[in-house]
Amino acid sequence: MAGVNESNSDSVVGSDVLSLESIRESLIRQEDTIVFSLIERSQFPLNALAFEDSGNSSSLTEFFVREIEFLQAKVGRYENPEENPFFLDNIPHPVFPTHKYPTVLHPKALFVNINKRIWDVYFKELLPLFVKPGDDGNYPSTAASDLACLQALSRRIHYGKFVAEVKFRDAPQDYEPAIRAKDTEALMKLLTFEKVEEMVKKRVQKKAETFGQEVKCISSDSGDESEKKYKVDPLVVSRIYGEWLIPLTKLVEVEYLLRRLD
Amino acid sequence: MAGVNESNSDSVVGSDVLSLESIRESLIRQEDTIVFSLIERSQFPLNALAFEDSGNSSSLTEFFVREIEFLQAKVGRYENPEENPFFLDNIPHPVFPTHKYPTVLHPKALFVNINKRIWDVYFKELLPLFVKPGDDGNYPSTAASDLACLQALSRRIHYGKFVAEVKFRDAPQDYEPAIRAKDTEALMKLLTFEKVEEMVKKRVQKKAETFGQEVKCISSDSGDESEKKYKVDPLVVSRIYGEWLIPLTKLVEVEYLLRRLD
Repeated sequence: MAGVNESNSDSVVGSDVLSLESIRESLIRQEDTIVFSLIERSQFPLNALAFEDSGNSSSLTEFFVREIEFLQAKVGRYENPEENPFFLDNIPHPVFPTHKYPTVLHPKALFVNINKRIWDVYFKELLPLFVKPGDDGNYPSTAASDLACLQALSRRIHYGKFVAEVKFRDAPQDYEPAIRAKDTEALMKLLTFEKVEEMVKKRVQKKAETFGQEVKCISSDSGDESEKKYKVDPLVVSRIYGEWLIPLTKLVEVEYLLRRLD
Repeated sequence: MAGVNESNSDSVVGSDVLSLESIRESLIRQEDTIVFSLIERSQFPLNALAFEDSGNSSSLTEFFVREIEFLQAKVGRYENPEENPFFLDNIPHPVFPTHKYPTVLHPKALFVNINKRIWDVYFKELLPLFVKPGDDGNYPSTAASDLACLQALSRRIHYGKFVAEVKFRDAPQDYEPAIRAKDTEALMKLLTFEKVEEMVKKRVQKKAETFGQEVKCISSDSGDESEKKYKVDPLVVSRIYGEWLIPLTKLVEVEYLLRRLD
């Protein structure tokens, strides 16, 4: 049969060759997933009662995400080094045969996980930017939408490990002194390319405009652009990338590199 | 606090007023969700080993969906009459307080559920139309994507219950004779508006073009349209609506109406 084991073009870990080009392609494709997930979540108001801590017991959303992660681990999700759980300390053994992913990351740096921070940032800072305030009681659908956003954001941010690995391999001599000196600031400087970041921010803004528009049967291109309504404000999506996603990705890169020579 | 219990504009069951207009709006919004979910699934090849029956034991995908549905029931998903499970015969009691959804559907017709058929149609007929053949081993992500598609399609198709209810309420005298005679064909005729169906097919084609395009930083509107590449073939999406989603929705409408006078 044709196509068996053909590599998944969206996945860098599907191929043995780790290249900046394949990582870049995946990050660009992941932008679509992130924008889709934000648009989907914006159908529901904030619904804070679903995720706010209520003293000792965990919130509905936390319960839901914990249980889903356990279940996803059982079908092998976390065998994939692109995926990082929010809550699982011990990942249960998969009950189905799993795919053997090639080892591309440095074993001692592989386990960098900033999902606790991503969880807090998402609920406290990002969510109020792109959903209406209020409560419609529709918590099960809201929690499912939050999970989709959280997993898409986490995947993107932890891709920093692959970015760091390939940058390190390309020029170890540039990184080694800063790693040995644990010089976080120097590492951050080596990893920052402002022009690229500006391009990403512009592109995701365009994606939010394109994917979040009202599509009609008959196009009405005559109407002025300023009147256009979007499901999620494109400038907010650009800001989410510029103020949170890109800096958190670089944080993962730095954390990974600090362990790269261990 | 402002906005508490404000109604969710995407949900007909969020308001006591059931109108064809609000149902229409929801169905149009659901098109976006469906197109997003097909585009997301198209990242992975068919991966048939994940969902094919292997004798006695259930497939990875079936295991996954069964367990997720059980978990979603525990957070109250199926209290919402818009949601219908694929596998749950007995819906477990929610462990969190649930939202009280207004009763809009006829109690004896409420439980129409054609998810078994939707499952078969999805895996045997639809999936091969819009994903590449082959196997990349990435089953956990594939199963999560299949679940998103299945739930979006099921929600859309079972919206037929609301469509049927509002149409019946608007003109019970038109429907009652056919219902009493169990005249499926006459009911199907009453429920068919070819012009509307053609418009829906055109609109979802346009949505697949819009949401499945490659968005670049600098727009290249100069390129000829014929060269455009889409993540999912827009004509396939139109066909999925015309040949499966719309007929299955009408099937739900008929099944619902047949029980409407019980």
